[in-house]
Amino acid sequence: MNLVREIQPQSGIDPIVKLTAPDMERVNALILAMAGSNVELIPVIADHLISSGGKRLRPMLTIASALACGYGGEGHVKLAASVEFMHTATLLHDDVVDESDLRRGKQSARMIWGNQASVLVGDFLLGQAFKMMVEVGSLTALKILSDASAVIAEGEVWQLAAAKSLSTGEDDYLAVIGAKTAALFAAAAEVGPVIAGADAEVREALRLYGLNLGLAFQLVDDVLDYGGTAASLGKNTGDDFREGKITLPVIIAHQRGSAEERAFWAEAMEGGQTDDAALAHAKELLGRHGALEETVLRARHYGALASQAAASIPASESRDALLQVVDFCIDRIT
Amino acid sequence: MNLVREIQPQSGIDPIVKLTAPDMERVNALILAMAGSNVELIPVIADHLISSGGKRLRPMLTIASALACGYGGEGHVKLAASVEFMHTATLLHDDVVDESDLRRGKQSARMIWGNQASVLVGDFLLGQAFKMMVEVGSLTALKILSDASAVIAEGEVWQLAAAKSLSTGEDDYLAVIGAKTAALFAAAAEVGPVIAGADAEVREALRLYGLNLGLAFQLVDDVLDYGGTAASLGKNTGDDFREGKITLPVIIAHQRGSAEERAFWAEAMEGGQTDDAALAHAKELLGRHGALEETVLRARHYGALASQAAASIPASESRDALLQVVDFCIDRIT
Repeated sequence: MNLVREIQPQSGIDPIVKLTAPDMERVNALILAMAGSNVELIPVIADHLISSGGKRLRPMLTIASALACGYGGEGHVKLAASVEFMHTATLLHDDVVDESDLRRGKQSARMIWGNQASVLVGDFLLGQAFKMMVEVGSLTALKILSDASAVIAEGEVWQLAAAKSLSTGEDDYLAVIGAKTAALFAAAAEVGPVIAGADAEVREALRLYGLNLGLAFQLVDDVLDYGGTAASLGKNTGDDFREGKITLPVIIAHQRGSAEERAFWAEAMEGGQTDDAALAHAKELLGRHGALEETVLRARHYGALASQAAASIPASESRDALLQVVDFCIDRIT
Repeated sequence: MNLVREIQPQSGIDPIVKLTAPDMERVNALILAMAGSNVELIPVIADHLISSGGKRLRPMLTIASALACGYGGEGHVKLAASVEFMHTATLLHDDVVDESDLRRGKQSARMIWGNQASVLVGDFLLGQAFKMMVEVGSLTALKILSDASAVIAEGEVWQLAAAKSLSTGEDDYLAVIGAKTAALFAAAAEVGPVIAGADAEVREALRLYGLNLGLAFQLVDDVLDYGGTAASLGKNTGDDFREGKITLPVIIAHQRGSAEERAFWAEAMEGGQTDDAALAHAKELLGRHGALEETVLRARHYGALASQAAASIPASESRDALLQVVDFCIDRIT
């Protein structure tokens, strides 16, 4: 098995996967244990998400950032599991909010068990996340993660309000994804140095690394939603379009578009005219104005900021693994 | 104003209201501040709930239980606001889960702003609750409240699964309301002695006080849902019935009912036959079997346990106020 893997072309995510493997095994065991409950529906729904092939990128960031600061304790495992639970809870609630049918290529939990169970199991996982954080006992880590929790929800509400308005500017959009995606990446990478007792500069560097990585990651996702295939992305291509969710490619194409094109975008995003023909036309307009390429450029920019931040911490295998994650995130497009 | 109030017949809630008034003023100011956000929809929805005339019983328990232990610090105000936010978040998510149209006699948030906003604003308030708890800095209080958070959600999922099954027994039902209602009452009353550094016996007594008070409170609510008026309860009478939510009165009437009556309950609670005629028949059956009176007896039992627990802590004006809350909860029926 290992031999076969080693002769495959290496992906940017391999070093962090290898580096964190022993700890991630314990993270995964803890996730399964904490998703357990006498209330049958809870482990069933949790397992559906947990086993659905997510990369566990966020908890790996927590483990690797702790290791990069020479951490030798046990707290990083619980914090990593907390971060993944926060993410899973967000996914469950997001699917309800977005009325999504698919999640990572599988039927979404809300389609199988209903919105009600998705809301409540999300709440349960969030409660379990906080329990694990409390067990670690670092008030600073608790502050970082509870701040992120409020910021994520705030970003989601903002997106809910802004999602259907083409007056959303690029700055607004970056603020939304900064809150709803990048805040958890930032927190995941910041709690590592915190429990390791690292210097303030290292802590700030890893926070910035996570924040900018999260922005790059989301922008690449936005591009993939118009350009990837359903198989490669694990969700329907065109989901954002059909849900009337305004992402950076649309903002750019709208800004660069003619009056007629703007009328099309308004009908689609604000008016709900999002059938397959409309999606095809949207893709053509994105192509005409280079909106996907422009978005990729932005992703590369934030990726570069992430790399620059990580490069400022003392050299180690863990630091190099973190640096390669940036390439992995960007390379998902190609 | 004060003179007028003093000559009115005294309600059991008056002593705790008076005792906690100076601190509750700060709790209310903090609640308003922490419900603030640049994202407009958040304060709008939060204010809708916050201003909708809830009694703020839970935060008053936190304040009074801290004062009963001689607490002289500031942390009880933040913990009380956290407890109220946890409760408000639960209400927002509950309304989505129960598909409720009314909440305390007003249109529910989900009816005005949609399920999506209710889910996300609930998440935001929960995040803000944890932020305030972290600021207080007591890991023990954090553990108590984060445990409660997970237990509440677990109880809700359980109820979701059990709600439509008449095989739910009285024990099961008590376990559900122990989790979904009483756990927060217990936590609200336990964090007071914790931050006051009270003895373990006092802490345990106040936890038991809150737990049993919560059970009594919920059982009285269950009775009011069949016997109160919409005006007095601030929600539609018969809501539980129409939502197919199986509460103790129904469990008792079902157990005591004839085969024909059981068939009626099955059609109603499991089959969704819950029109006005069915509700009228349900009330008749509850009356025939003394199911409401039996439920009131249970409420009185838990009320007595709550009083017994509170009576064991050192005498003080705060303790007496806590004791009178028990009477208030039970007296809502009469």
